[in-house]
Amino acid sequence: MGLDGLKLLAKIRDEFGLKIISEVRDSTHVHDIIEYADIIQIGAKSMYDHGILRACGKANKPVMLKRGFGTSLQEFVQASEFILSGGNEQVILCERGIRTFENKTRFTLDLCGAAYLKEHTNLPLVLDPSHAMGYAYGVPDLARACFAMGIDGLLIEVHPNPAVAKSDASQQLNHKEFINLYDSLLKIGEAIGYQLI
Amino acid sequence: MGLDGLKLLAKIRDEFGLKIISEVRDSTHVHDIIEYADIIQIGAKSMYDHGILRACGKANKPVMLKRGFGTSLQEFVQASEFILSGGNEQVILCERGIRTFENKTRFTLDLCGAAYLKEHTNLPLVLDPSHAMGYAYGVPDLARACFAMGIDGLLIEVHPNPAVAKSDASQQLNHKEFINLYDSLLKIGEAIGYQLI
Amino acid sequence: MGLDGLKLLAKIRDEFGLKIISEVRDSTHVHDIIEYADIIQIGAKSMYDHGILRACGKANKPVMLKRGFGTSLQEFVQASEFILSGGNEQVILCERGIRTFENKTRFTLDLCGAAYLKEHTNLPLVLDPSHAMGYAYGVPDLARACFAMGIDGLLIEVHPNPAVAKSDASQQLNHKEFINLYDSLLKIGEAIGYQLI
Amino acid sequence: MGLDGLKLLAKIRDEFGLKIISEVRDSTHVHDIIEYADIIQIGAKSMYDHGILRACGKANKPVMLKRGFGTSLQEFVQASEFILSGGNEQVILCERGIRTFENKTRFTLDLCGAAYLKEHTNLPLVLDPSHAMGYAYGVPDLARACFAMGIDGLLIEVHPNPAVAKSDASQQLNHKEFINLYDSLLKIGEAIGYQLI
Repeated sequence: MGLDGLKLLAKIRDEFGLKIISEVRDSTHVHDIIEYADIIQIGAKSMYDHGILRACGKANKPVMLKRGFGTSLQEFVQASEFILSGGNEQVILCERGIRTFENKTRFTLDLCGAAYLKEHTNLPLVLDPSHAMGYAYGVPDLARACFAMGIDGLLIEVHPNPAVAKSDASQQLNHKEFINLYDSLLKIGEAIGYQLI
Repeated sequence: MGLDGLKLLAKIRDEFGLKIISEVRDSTHVHDIIEYADIIQIGAKSMYDHGILRACGKANKPVMLKRGFGTSLQEFVQASEFILSGGNEQVILCERGIRTFENKTRFTLDLCGAAYLKEHTNLPLVLDPSHAMGYAYGVPDLARACFAMGIDGLLIEVHPNPAVAKSDASQQLNHKEFINLYDSLLKIGEAIGYQLI
Repeated sequence: MGLDGLKLLAKIRDEFGLKIISEVRDSTHVHDIIEYADIIQIGAKSMYDHGILRACGKANKPVMLKRGFGTSLQEFVQASEFILSGGNEQVILCERGIRTFENKTRFTLDLCGAAYLKEHTNLPLVLDPSHAMGYAYGVPDLARACFAMGIDGLLIEVHPNPAVAKSDASQQLNHKEFINLYDSLLKIGEAIGYQLI
Repeated sequence: MGLDGLKLLAKIRDEFGLKIISEVRDSTHVHDIIEYADIIQIGAKSMYDHGILRACGKANKPVMLKRGFGTSLQEFVQASEFILSGGNEQVILCERGIRTFENKTRFTLDLCGAAYLKEHTNLPLVLDPSHAMGYAYGVPDLARACFAMGIDGLLIEVHPNPAVAKSDASQQLNHKEFINLYDSLLKIGEAIGYQLI
């Protein structure tokens, strides 16, 4: 996202009280993102970019690090530690699917890996079933699965009219689907003692 | 399992009212399994054995087909259709983890694949988080995740004293861990309208 | 291949002086193969079948063990050792491609694995570029690559008219393509001191 | 590599008549690399960095694009086309191993993919057996395999004393091993009508 887009987002934030999370595309504009976003997102494809990791390590804002689709858990944890060692303690991990031999779904959401991260790190964990599945039909079931693991956040792609979405149209929920999902998450949350914000 | 073992299991069944599910090792003893077990299990490693699939297609008992760890969803569905086309309509699918580049966990439980199977087949679906994870610490979280997807069954390995288990010791829950898991599943089941048997 | 087919093949062998290698489909007919074939082939999909492995361990004929497409090198070596430990010392290893995220080619021929097997075992090694690639256009280049590694054999699928082949049509070389390949292998063989039979 | 290192390399080039190929770490220093190197290398981990790809598309020097270890052939070709469409026609493809379930070797050199690239693109192709294998013992055999495919270049890691190499020590050939390899490549080159430079 360019600087103009970020400024527009910041204006919307001030008007509506939302928070902005925005992805660093490459290290040339990391400082713009750090300035304007509330949470800095490091995308799966730039997880190995030391320029970005270093800048985020010095930033005073939360960083959400998305695991690369070809990234081992060990490399993922190492990248998070690289940011932490730069002085920024607000690192959030995000698993969004790995690339496997199976291609009926876009990626393979690695919930065994999520269980590993919960056990072996102390960082908040967010899961992204939309990118992993790639198809809206599977997102609600996967989102409930993720939530029942007791993780810290979910990324769910939503669009008022998915058919005309400009990116990743096949994986967007419409508003009604999202509300139904949200209601079921509320109930699961009560059952396992988790609160949805 | 040999014929003597099967006969012993059958005796225990009659005494305690349990059901027996037992795995066909190879096609030489498939008829013993068909005779003595209540459910015939086709293991992940023999999923391509046409002798076994053919015999199960003619059997008059439910068959649980485990997906091979290198098996595509398409091949998995085709194997189930091979059994169905033999005349046996009682086929249960079981996803138990696929082999990926990640080796911090034993396999990678493919819940995107589970969502695919729920959408594209009408067969009951069972998930096996114990074999996928390979480590007991992750099994309860994964079992809750699987259950919240609305699937039809779970395989959970339990042992009174996992440390002395003769196989797969690292992935066994002890009784207390299992009871805690079961309690949480009961609550999730109430939340999403699913009943545990 | 059924018993009748094997008997026919054996007749052709006697008439033309060829050798027969034939694949064990499942453990019900392993003894027919052992009786009629000159080399027993254990296919990639039955590599874990202990009934077959055990019977081959007691056979008095060479066994070619094909690596499963989801099989680790460790499991592959273990399966070969299982046959060896049964008393049959004539075991040939065959790498024929593993399943990876890449699907522009049918499988991924694992020549790093071939280098590993050459270093860590003393068994003859055969490579199968036809099944790995799945498309005839890549087979000659891959066959030259395999041969230049200094391995012990190649499986190359050939058909007088690939377009009408009853199985795996897309990966068959026609006679002219095979002869051209063979000529280039002869030259590489001279260069690296290997003799083609 | 920092700017000082690049200047030093450039001085060595002028003194000894060597060419410099150097890797762009991230998009902050791509212009230094473009200025000082003879060939710009885009590493496997930064293959998706559009800032780097865009700058290389406008550069007037050859670019060697290394395939990411989790990158499909389609994405790899698309990244090369992105550079080409920027106006730079001097793009070299480099396959250096993909990440698969097999971990006895560092990566899996994808020679089926190399055959695909030879058939479907017109770009020069370089292979990197050292990084794929990760162990010196397999490098000579793999290098001969690559060369026999008729590709355009090889990356072979060499160190006068591998035991003290500062990076990737286990995969370096020493001088004697390299010379032996080179001699065998000369012979294979003669056999298949390829000339080594």
